[in-house]
Amino acid sequence: MPRSESSSPSFMDLAFEEACRAAEKGEVPVGAVVVASDGTVLAQAGNRTETDADPSAHAEILALRFAAKKRNSPRLPDCDLYVTLEPCAMCAAAISIARLRKVVFAAYDPKGGAIEHGPRFFSQPTCHHVPEVVGGVDEERARALLKTFFVDKR
Amino acid sequence: MPRSESSSPSFMDLAFEEACRAAEKGEVPVGAVVVASDGTVLAQAGNRTETDADPSAHAEILALRFAAKKRNSPRLPDCDLYVTLEPCAMCAAAISIARLRKVVFAAYDPKGGAIEHGPRFFSQPTCHHVPEVVGGVDEERARALLKTFFVDKR
Repeated sequence: MPRSESSSPSFMDLAFEEACRAAEKGEVPVGAVVVASDGTVLAQAGNRTETDADPSAHAEILALRFAAKKRNSPRLPDCDLYVTLEPCAMCAAAISIARLRKVVFAAYDPKGGAIEHGPRFFSQPTCHHVPEVVGGVDEERARALLKTFFVDKR
Repeated sequence: MPRSESSSPSFMDLAFEEACRAAEKGEVPVGAVVVASDGTVLAQAGNRTETDADPSAHAEILALRFAAKKRNSPRLPDCDLYVTLEPCAMCAAAISIARLRKVVFAAYDPKGGAIEHGPRFFSQPTCHHVPEVVGGVDEERARALLKTFFVDKR
């Protein structure tokens, strides 16, 4: 059953909470949530590349990893990902490998995004699974969070 | 100091050993090794997506993750990756995030590869770090291994 519009913001709110927690740890503030088709939140994570010393530990990869572990399957075809920033190529490809149903992201990322920018991964003929994509749903909040983070860093 | 040509095959041999071990577990046979500039093997791994129920558990990601953990840093700028198959977009982007010095792969992968095929990730203007790439160094061995695996699966 398709999710009603009204429930979407709360999943993105959870993703933003994860992004804020990441910022508090000195990580680039990005958060992600994996939600099953019945609205169950399977996993939520913030970026942990520095904390975990793991180049793959973007919020999306961690959330996918936790959700897949919970389901005991690397494929999550009934699941949606909510993330505060347009996924990079690593995360876009992982979303495709996990066969997600839908990706919703808050801000476009012209520098590192790989859905609407750069390699536009889901538009490649070699992309084996293309999810539904809803982009730019909360551009301003995500941009403000990233801006504060990078200003504080300088 | 640049590595001599003669030492390269042994790192790829290790990657092939990992690929064979992956095949024995019913995984798509791909193996990867991360090597430091002094020739130390920091990490080696085979594909474990099904075994670990982890969509991100490609051989390259696991090897990068283990090497980064060992170094306690998500960045491995003095390190090289040897892998039996052309990396996909997820792994190519992770290689870039980890700022690897060099990637050596055995077989080209026209269907899922993302270095010489599909998104050609390292050629994208948004790719922030481009490693040296040596492709197709042992095409036949990698192809034979994959072919045997997929024939056995059918």
